[in-house]
Amino acid sequence: MSSPYLIHFLLEQARKENWRVTVADLDEGMARRRVGDHPNGETLAFDVNDAAQRRELIQGADVVVSLLAPQFQLMIAEDCLACGSHMVSASYASRELKALYDVAREKGLLLLAECGLDPGIDHMSSMEMIESIRADKGKVISFWSYGSGVPAPESISNPLKYAITWNPRNVVMAGEKGAQYLEHGHVKIVPRQRIFEQTWHVDVEGLGEMEAYSNRDSLSYPEVLGLKDVRTMVRATLRYPGFAGTWRQIVSLGLSDETIHIPDLQQRSYAEVVEMFLPLNLPGRNLPTRLSRLLNISPTGHIMQNLKWLGLFSEDKVSCKGDTAAAMLIDLLQKKLVLHEDECDMVVLQHEMEVEYEDKRRELRVSTMVHKGEAGGFTAMSRTVGLPAALAVCMILKEEILERGVLIPIHPGIYKPILEALASEGITFEHSVRKASAAPELY
Amino acid sequence: MSSPYLIHFLLEQARKENWRVTVADLDEGMARRRVGDHPNGETLAFDVNDAAQRRELIQGADVVVSLLAPQFQLMIAEDCLACGSHMVSASYASRELKALYDVAREKGLLLLAECGLDPGIDHMSSMEMIESIRADKGKVISFWSYGSGVPAPESISNPLKYAITWNPRNVVMAGEKGAQYLEHGHVKIVPRQRIFEQTWHVDVEGLGEMEAYSNRDSLSYPEVLGLKDVRTMVRATLRYPGFAGTWRQIVSLGLSDETIHIPDLQQRSYAEVVEMFLPLNLPGRNLPTRLSRLLNISPTGHIMQNLKWLGLFSEDKVSCKGDTAAAMLIDLLQKKLVLHEDECDMVVLQHEMEVEYEDKRRELRVSTMVHKGEAGGFTAMSRTVGLPAALAVCMILKEEILERGVLIPIHPGIYKPILEALASEGITFEHSVRKASAAPELY
Repeated sequence: MSSPYLIHFLLEQARKENWRVTVADLDEGMARRRVGDHPNGETLAFDVNDAAQRRELIQGADVVVSLLAPQFQLMIAEDCLACGSHMVSASYASRELKALYDVAREKGLLLLAECGLDPGIDHMSSMEMIESIRADKGKVISFWSYGSGVPAPESISNPLKYAITWNPRNVVMAGEKGAQYLEHGHVKIVPRQRIFEQTWHVDVEGLGEMEAYSNRDSLSYPEVLGLKDVRTMVRATLRYPGFAGTWRQIVSLGLSDETIHIPDLQQRSYAEVVEMFLPLNLPGRNLPTRLSRLLNISPTGHIMQNLKWLGLFSEDKVSCKGDTAAAMLIDLLQKKLVLHEDECDMVVLQHEMEVEYEDKRRELRVSTMVHKGEAGGFTAMSRTVGLPAALAVCMILKEEILERGVLIPIHPGIYKPILEALASEGITFEHSVRKASAAPELY
Repeated sequence: MSSPYLIHFLLEQARKENWRVTVADLDEGMARRRVGDHPNGETLAFDVNDAAQRRELIQGADVVVSLLAPQFQLMIAEDCLACGSHMVSASYASRELKALYDVAREKGLLLLAECGLDPGIDHMSSMEMIESIRADKGKVISFWSYGSGVPAPESISNPLKYAITWNPRNVVMAGEKGAQYLEHGHVKIVPRQRIFEQTWHVDVEGLGEMEAYSNRDSLSYPEVLGLKDVRTMVRATLRYPGFAGTWRQIVSLGLSDETIHIPDLQQRSYAEVVEMFLPLNLPGRNLPTRLSRLLNISPTGHIMQNLKWLGLFSEDKVSCKGDTAAAMLIDLLQKKLVLHEDECDMVVLQHEMEVEYEDKRRELRVSTMVHKGEAGGFTAMSRTVGLPAALAVCMILKEEILERGVLIPIHPGIYKPILEALASEGITFEHSVRKASAAPELY
């Protein structure tokens, strides 16, 4: 779901520069739909687990863009090193990937990870903001960094106020690994079961109040971003208020589980599957009442209404691939949380940095990017994930990016040209200043 | 921890039969302590990930006993098939392992899994019980099967009433994959976060009341055991009452997490690590009070006393390998939940089958095995896990077991001779009958 704009942009650049773009997908039809009959594009059916094909393909490429799931990134990276190809990816750089730094440098290759939206543009704009604060002789004391992809306010058409614009499994499994961050000098851990409970309000410039939940491991970022004085460092995800309250109950019920195999899942209705998660002895004659008792929430409140709207009490047969509750939920979200033809999505990044100046004066510097998709066209998600990666590819090919090693876009030689090019594509940040007392209050 | 008696027994048999026993361990010293200077034994430093060494070792063996962690079973099984060796294991037979059935039969090999205590003896005694019920023209309507390893009542020396007698990681990760069972014809799923909440009472013959929590996937057992009429099929684990209530809070706090890497774990105290899991804004001046508020439990009740006794509020430095909360917890349990020299452990298996006879009369047939270890000698856990596997090995070598394929011990040709030999080693079942109304009431 993140690839359409990336492919579109690369094909357009390829036309100008006389490059060739090969789009490889397990489902070649999908690749063909993206490439059309573009003279500089070709498509391939590609199974990442076929080592011989993988090597052959990578061997023939100057730069490989990997939009595969995170577990395949290392495999691709190792092949790129073996075959002498550069790599660009929008996934997080794992410990194992970072360990290839020396080899990549020796071979004169760039493996650029975290070069999408979040991670990606967020790193680049953080670095730019930090640089400007340093120029003003300020120190960053606290840093809250928010990222989000939601429907635009005018396109909210469901009670969860959410729409699937990227891999729906990521939505279902969000929070599954817990999170940790730094708060007033203390390391804080949020285990998976409290991610959607420990939320807080964020005032997004120009949009109003949203809710935030903590996003994975923020602890490495002070060092990564060179923030020596930072006492609070939190990366978080934004939703419209109320999403987390409903999602928390879905997780608590157990529907995000992908380890338990449910027998005959496709022969059962949604209501039957939900009933499986309720103890038989739970009192009550109907499913919603019983469920509200298990979860200890109001049987008539908005969370129960949302669960009903989602279709969890429906007598329709489950239709999904796979045999887990998570598979059912992924399928359901794809059907219900749709961005319709006349609606557009919206991507939000907001950095809030509490800055202390030499005279001890403090203020909150806020930098906000709000970017909306085109109804019926490219989503904001696809544009903002795809463009940084596509721009990086072009700049590597044109030797405008010369850094080598396993890197993320926090180096001026990478982020400056990319941010400049993003601005000319209409992806820009607004800057504002608030009183230090306006800093967010975490859970 | 399950290997000592297995090795001891095999060495004694080897002396009589002139066999050779090779004990291979990552830590050869550990293997040497088990084998001593027994003339029929030898030891080896062995890394399961060294494919060449693995093949060479397996090539030279008539029967391979694998007590490795579950994720290595398939690797060993595949090598056994390639090298023409039989295999015996006490681990669950995975889908992937079962898929090797035809190849194993073709090659005339037996890969016998689930041949320990639970799974193992439980299957064998179930089959024997079912056979006897059939002989009485009875149908099994419901089947509750319980397994447990705990301190003997006279050896309870800590408030959790538990002692580590097997891999402590299994204790910490128990319930992590959730559970599912059949109850009055309905499939019921217990997600991991409710395993230690949805407990029930079990009256163990000769011991009194214990608490049960559901154990993994019970759904396949009606078919496996040939129980066509069964409407309730539940496998569960027993503890002394109160264990689950405390454990549930440990899991709820997040201490069984093994995905989040805690920086500088060994430089921190237990209290500091627990504090990391509490929101900074949680009110209260001292850690236990704050924790009781997070968990919403009595600050002065027995659960908080247990957490304190465990050492979770201690200012001592954490000492563990690894950098996760789970690693810390495993190390702590190993230190605190010790079976002392003068104490003995106890293994309990209890099957409860609700039987309907041709005249519609129903009763609850109960079969109970309580086996205690020897203070200072072999634990009951080591004896009851090791003996079935060791006996299977001997019977395969002596051609007293002739079944072939990937099997678990539910075939008369396997379980009958093993149960008979177990009885002569003092491992026996007591049978009793209760009114049908005495059937357990699940959560």
